[in-house]
Amino acid sequence: MTATTTPDQKAEVLIQALPYLKEFAGKTIVVKYGGNAMIDEGLKRAVMTDIVLMRYVGINPILVHGGGPEVSEAMRRMGKEPAFVSGLRVTDEETMEIVEMVLAGKTNKGIVSHLNAEGGRAVGLSGKDANLIMAEKETRRGDIGFVGRITQVNPDIIHTLTQDGYIPVISSVAVGWDGASYNVNADTAAGELAAALCATKLILMTDVEGLYRDFQDQDSLISAMTSDEAQAMIDSGAADKGMIPKLEACLTALDAGVDRAHIIDGRRPHALLIEIFTDAGIGTMIH
Amino acid sequence: MTATTTPDQKAEVLIQALPYLKEFAGKTIVVKYGGNAMIDEGLKRAVMTDIVLMRYVGINPILVHGGGPEVSEAMRRMGKEPAFVSGLRVTDEETMEIVEMVLAGKTNKGIVSHLNAEGGRAVGLSGKDANLIMAEKETRRGDIGFVGRITQVNPDIIHTLTQDGYIPVISSVAVGWDGASYNVNADTAAGELAAALCATKLILMTDVEGLYRDFQDQDSLISAMTSDEAQAMIDSGAADKGMIPKLEACLTALDAGVDRAHIIDGRRPHALLIEIFTDAGIGTMIH
Amino acid sequence: MTATTTPDQKAEVLIQALPYLKEFAGKTIVVKYGGNAMIDEGLKRAVMTDIVLMRYVGINPILVHGGGPEVSEAMRRMGKEPAFVSGLRVTDEETMEIVEMVLAGKTNKGIVSHLNAEGGRAVGLSGKDANLIMAEKETRRGDIGFVGRITQVNPDIIHTLTQDGYIPVISSVAVGWDGASYNVNADTAAGELAAALCATKLILMTDVEGLYRDFQDQDSLISAMTSDEAQAMIDSGAADKGMIPKLEACLTALDAGVDRAHIIDGRRPHALLIEIFTDAGIGTMIH
Amino acid sequence: MTATTTPDQKAEVLIQALPYLKEFAGKTIVVKYGGNAMIDEGLKRAVMTDIVLMRYVGINPILVHGGGPEVSEAMRRMGKEPAFVSGLRVTDEETMEIVEMVLAGKTNKGIVSHLNAEGGRAVGLSGKDANLIMAEKETRRGDIGFVGRITQVNPDIIHTLTQDGYIPVISSVAVGWDGASYNVNADTAAGELAAALCATKLILMTDVEGLYRDFQDQDSLISAMTSDEAQAMIDSGAADKGMIPKLEACLTALDAGVDRAHIIDGRRPHALLIEIFTDAGIGTMIH
Amino acid sequence: MTATTTPDQKAEVLIQALPYLKEFAGKTIVVKYGGNAMIDEGLKRAVMTDIVLMRYVGINPILVHGGGPEVSEAMRRMGKEPAFVSGLRVTDEETMEIVEMVLAGKTNKGIVSHLNAEGGRAVGLSGKDANLIMAEKETRRGDIGFVGRITQVNPDIIHTLTQDGYIPVISSVAVGWDGASYNVNADTAAGELAAALCATKLILMTDVEGLYRDFQDQDSLISAMTSDEAQAMIDSGAADKGMIPKLEACLTALDAGVDRAHIIDGRRPHALLIEIFTDAGIGTMIH
Amino acid sequence: MTATTTPDQKAEVLIQALPYLKEFAGKTIVVKYGGNAMIDEGLKRAVMTDIVLMRYVGINPILVHGGGPEVSEAMRRMGKEPAFVSGLRVTDEETMEIVEMVLAGKTNKGIVSHLNAEGGRAVGLSGKDANLIMAEKETRRGDIGFVGRITQVNPDIIHTLTQDGYIPVISSVAVGWDGASYNVNADTAAGELAAALCATKLILMTDVEGLYRDFQDQDSLISAMTSDEAQAMIDSGAADKGMIPKLEACLTALDAGVDRAHIIDGRRPHALLIEIFTDAGIGTMIH
Repeated sequence: MTATTTPDQKAEVLIQALPYLKEFAGKTIVVKYGGNAMIDEGLKRAVMTDIVLMRYVGINPILVHGGGPEVSEAMRRMGKEPAFVSGLRVTDEETMEIVEMVLAGKTNKGIVSHLNAEGGRAVGLSGKDANLIMAEKETRRGDIGFVGRITQVNPDIIHTLTQDGYIPVISSVAVGWDGASYNVNADTAAGELAAALCATKLILMTDVEGLYRDFQDQDSLISAMTSDEAQAMIDSGAADKGMIPKLEACLTALDAGVDRAHIIDGRRPHALLIEIFTDAGIGTMIH
Repeated sequence: MTATTTPDQKAEVLIQALPYLKEFAGKTIVVKYGGNAMIDEGLKRAVMTDIVLMRYVGINPILVHGGGPEVSEAMRRMGKEPAFVSGLRVTDEETMEIVEMVLAGKTNKGIVSHLNAEGGRAVGLSGKDANLIMAEKETRRGDIGFVGRITQVNPDIIHTLTQDGYIPVISSVAVGWDGASYNVNADTAAGELAAALCATKLILMTDVEGLYRDFQDQDSLISAMTSDEAQAMIDSGAADKGMIPKLEACLTALDAGVDRAHIIDGRRPHALLIEIFTDAGIGTMIH
Repeated sequence: MTATTTPDQKAEVLIQALPYLKEFAGKTIVVKYGGNAMIDEGLKRAVMTDIVLMRYVGINPILVHGGGPEVSEAMRRMGKEPAFVSGLRVTDEETMEIVEMVLAGKTNKGIVSHLNAEGGRAVGLSGKDANLIMAEKETRRGDIGFVGRITQVNPDIIHTLTQDGYIPVISSVAVGWDGASYNVNADTAAGELAAALCATKLILMTDVEGLYRDFQDQDSLISAMTSDEAQAMIDSGAADKGMIPKLEACLTALDAGVDRAHIIDGRRPHALLIEIFTDAGIGTMIH
Repeated sequence: MTATTTPDQKAEVLIQALPYLKEFAGKTIVVKYGGNAMIDEGLKRAVMTDIVLMRYVGINPILVHGGGPEVSEAMRRMGKEPAFVSGLRVTDEETMEIVEMVLAGKTNKGIVSHLNAEGGRAVGLSGKDANLIMAEKETRRGDIGFVGRITQVNPDIIHTLTQDGYIPVISSVAVGWDGASYNVNADTAAGELAAALCATKLILMTDVEGLYRDFQDQDSLISAMTSDEAQAMIDSGAADKGMIPKLEACLTALDAGVDRAHIIDGRRPHALLIEIFTDAGIGTMIH
Repeated sequence: MTATTTPDQKAEVLIQALPYLKEFAGKTIVVKYGGNAMIDEGLKRAVMTDIVLMRYVGINPILVHGGGPEVSEAMRRMGKEPAFVSGLRVTDEETMEIVEMVLAGKTNKGIVSHLNAEGGRAVGLSGKDANLIMAEKETRRGDIGFVGRITQVNPDIIHTLTQDGYIPVISSVAVGWDGASYNVNADTAAGELAAALCATKLILMTDVEGLYRDFQDQDSLISAMTSDEAQAMIDSGAADKGMIPKLEACLTALDAGVDRAHIIDGRRPHALLIEIFTDAGIGTMIH
Repeated sequence: MTATTTPDQKAEVLIQALPYLKEFAGKTIVVKYGGNAMIDEGLKRAVMTDIVLMRYVGINPILVHGGGPEVSEAMRRMGKEPAFVSGLRVTDEETMEIVEMVLAGKTNKGIVSHLNAEGGRAVGLSGKDANLIMAEKETRRGDIGFVGRITQVNPDIIHTLTQDGYIPVISSVAVGWDGASYNVNADTAAGELAAALCATKLILMTDVEGLYRDFQDQDSLISAMTSDEAQAMIDSGAADKGMIPKLEACLTALDAGVDRAHIIDGRRPHALLIEIFTDAGIGTMIH
């Protein structure tokens, strides 16, 4: 494309971004990073530059990530077979240790390093740092070990970092009152963080185009819906199971006053920039 | 173009701007606004959005303007015929009053209002406000009245305004120690302000493509030159007379530590953005 | 007098000013400057020193001015005959341009320059700067062109300036939502500014001694009255027509919590100081 | 006088004070308070209002006082006869206790209370508070007990107080490294404080008109002299013995960069205001 | 003991203090200093180090003191016999002068000097400084002269000092609206200061073990009681007369939101540290 | 011991700590945490309380840790046999990934969680966060993979955290200019951090008593030595090989202006407190 975009067209594009620059100046946007965009090198690099650009134009981006595939791979290397109950990883003590090592030690620091290489100033945190994300044992689906339900978010450390221009990168590990580690869903963590930070937007990156009215019909993509409609989709069972934690995260954020929540297609390069700085409809927006 | 630039191309353009966002974050850029870009409505609007965009992405733009044609027109309406000596307006007391009314009362406030309409927060100043630009009578070319030579710039008021996010717009009227008004060249004023503010860039908008090695040969446009070369062009007489105050303004700024000075073509829409945010060669750069 | 005031008497006068220094330390006083005090050189100089002195003893003076006579004179020089309807200037587009040039370009900068020459640090603003005074078309008396009714005051820029010790000087030009210029009454503008700034005092300088109970009887000067009495004078028609905008400005300020509004005689040298720093009854005070 | 000074004259006096307000805005002036001005009720009140007025117009006054006569009186009431050697009080341990009680307990708090009653916000300190004035035993004139030579001034506490608008009142008691109390000359203490605070002026109040060239000739009053001339008067023995510590205090201050030191006649009401705010020659100025 | 406490035991003691360090970090504790702890050299030194240590570990200690025995002694030296009515000193004008000299001049500065010698940065104040403690004549027990009832506490000066790390030391002298001095009970003053400063603790040092249920029975020491119980003891007459002002001071503080008030035995070295940093029951705690 | 230390002895111990509280108030102390103190539960808990206590009494503790044994264990679980060359771990890409997961994901977050459980507010960082520790490939001992030599420390993020009261916990992983991870020696990292932070003290926790003059003679423990002596021990080969990086870390810190470096016995509970807050000789001090 570089060959075909003239300098004048470039200027025009920048000018078209101006209304969005005005709207989001000084605002906080929580991004759940996941799926293919964490695996494909090209997509990964595109996300990193998008986040750094957001910071340079005056937005406070907060990145939240999980890392299921990497955890499962590490478990297998250590001779443990991953197991799941209703989509939740069965997490015994040894598994929890592997989860934490992979997410907070490998994935998190990899993202941090990547952002810094693109010119950002990123700092990685887990929910244990400064007791950022506190949880208790999730007991609603039987005993599946150290799977946590978030009970409290202490966002002070985020303010400390963003006031000095840092980009916080947060892995979905929580801490209990007793200091134990808990595995929490990264979409849920992003929703709770957006709520606690009074963010302007929550953006969940997925490997689908967005939310479908009928998840078996690729033509039924929903561009925009209200939170009531989203709740109805959960209640009626119309939503795909995998989408439920994402929809719930969006509702958590919206209930706390976040303006808009988005489920976008992370397989598209620069999906974040397109969502934030253009008028192109992309994915599903819940307001 | 809007029809043909896809969302993906737009994202690409934004990403290409990232190195420039990094380079100019928090920096001051002094822009001399003039020529056709002050007359043509489309160009005018383009400059205003460019300046507002600069402010939103974290740059401190400072706008300096003259307004010769409007002054001459007002003089004629008041029954006075404009007169010039070596390119300098013969400025008797009555003319000075008209200069000041037009520049500080009409042109300046028109620009301010336009910037505010585009979402900026602009404040208009003349050199009299807070004694921003002080001058004494220019006597090197005989007595041509209230034409001033700048003797001092007091930039405190600029810092007061930019720290609170305002865009200063400055008309080329100076004040003497006795409180008298002086007409000063706007290019010169921009150069002196860039010097006093330790700006990163000085950009002079003109109605030509840039500086020509031979000003009668349209193919001899100079893309880049050193300040020594610029000085040589002045000394040798190779530079077009009209260009001399512009070159001198560039040298004043560069001598004071400004990184780069640019003479750009204000007839091109968004010439400012193209100069600042793309790698396209535009006009003449002196370093 | 200098010859006859002894050093001891001088000290005594300073000491008598102490209660007023205590009362007004750090307070904002809005002064509408106008009438003879803007024309007579001696009076002009007296006002300027009074304002600078106020600033040096810790008061925040805000100066608001119009400039009707200078506008009419400039119009005539440009071959236009001034016209008025119920005391309001008929303001076509060309007239509005002249109003703005004269008030914001000449009168305003002249006052700024004069204050700076007396040792103040003044900055001139029109209502367009930072959208300080916003207005819409006044339609209550037929179409008289660009005469505005003030709809909003945005005082942020005033705080930015006064916090750094500057004296704001404001011309009575307002801006519409569309960026158009509007001619507004300077007394009204002063009243609205006093209200928006939570000033302690509003002082209107006039060319009469104050308000007369019977405006044909020079012996009926009112020293003090309540805002209810002022409202009654407007309603009953007892007030002189020329006084009505002044009385209304006072009431606007008082309704917003300003402590006292004063109509004083600008023909008396140092009337401001006498009003503020002595117990001498001067003009009419409304509380 | 009140009857005969008109409001216009009052305004004129205030205006005449303006150059002095400009000159001393934000500056520190150290005043040694003593002599008749500490005894006569009318003079006392005049000094208090002068000091409060100084603070209200933006000056930082620092008051330093001794209190010899009150100390001697208290000693006699306790059955001890005061004794002096070369003008220095013989200060045994019991005497030192009386000195401290009188100066820091009675005189100091009396001044503080008086300033507060006039609308100031005064805080009394002795040299012991925050180790403000440290001294060692004066041994140059034999053993006269707890008479101290100042070795160090720690002005931090003064800055803490003046930044919050308080008027410090300091009694001439110093502290040794061992915590012992020392009686120090108040003129000397004022000179050292002026030096340590980088004051603009040091003013010593006395019971004479100023310094006489020949101290037996009332017509030989010196209006102004250089510090070299002052040093010469000390060296030659021309200066009255009682004046020597005052002259030395002035020289200490001037050597440290204080602009001017003054010896003024405290018997004249408002001598401080006359010195600071008028052009009347009063007392002796050393520069 | 030094010989027998091993380094490991020392570390253990520090660790045991940690919960108290957490609890009192940044909190204000008002200490009434009096009795034997002001006379015995060893106790005095222990209190001073305790206070300095409190400051170094992040607590804001405020010291309030009286000094009855020293006042009586000074009175006798001046030939006046002390007299009391219901425990209140009959305070004629001359007595008041002695009270003030002794408390503010001798006792206060002695404590300040002692704290500074231990490494603190103390500043002594009386209730007159910055009008810290204001009082009116106590008339409920007949005319006993300048004995005051506290009407207002102005704690600004305390905040100014503690924010810069100083330890305020306050003598129990108050000032009337007319500037007169009043003798106030130091326990009462401490209670009022604790209330005005929203302190966390009020600690009154006495010469008894604490409060006895039956003051003639040494075995009836009360470890802890509620404020209702304290009020009942006052109302029923069960409390020793000398204890009543202390109990009332505690109630004043508790009513204003102070967490706990303590009456402790000042005869025990480091009673303050033991109370604050250990779990040892010491004296009587009212909550 | 608790049973045998009386409240009075406890107070005495606190008082004995006062000189050290004064000395270290507001100072930075870098602690390399390692050895048995990271394994034994009792020792671990003792270190955590020591660090939290340091923070509460106003010291800025910075904790640096490695974690060799945990890395080796994790490697073996993943089927890789640890290998070493001259004491440096041979670190291929897969090993580096394991190092990072263990240190930054498990060990670091475990320490953070432990400190928070004791009442601290800890935040874990690796050298990648905000590019805190940058390194290049260590090539002086052949190619042993991703073993790094520290080239730069960027301590801004540490200041951001400590200013808001957080305790930084740093794992010994560095980042290259290309974003690659490097395994660095934790002692070396602690030395470089102490140097970059202008720390007051560097404390290295080991599993020996300190440095021996002859490492085979347990009676030759060195209490104190100069940096020249330390250098000589390295040069002469007298120092035990395992001690060399520790000695070099000490020298790096001392050369940069750190006051003192300590090698202490981490097997002793509360060795940190004993070193910092008592006069007991413990381990080896280099100055």
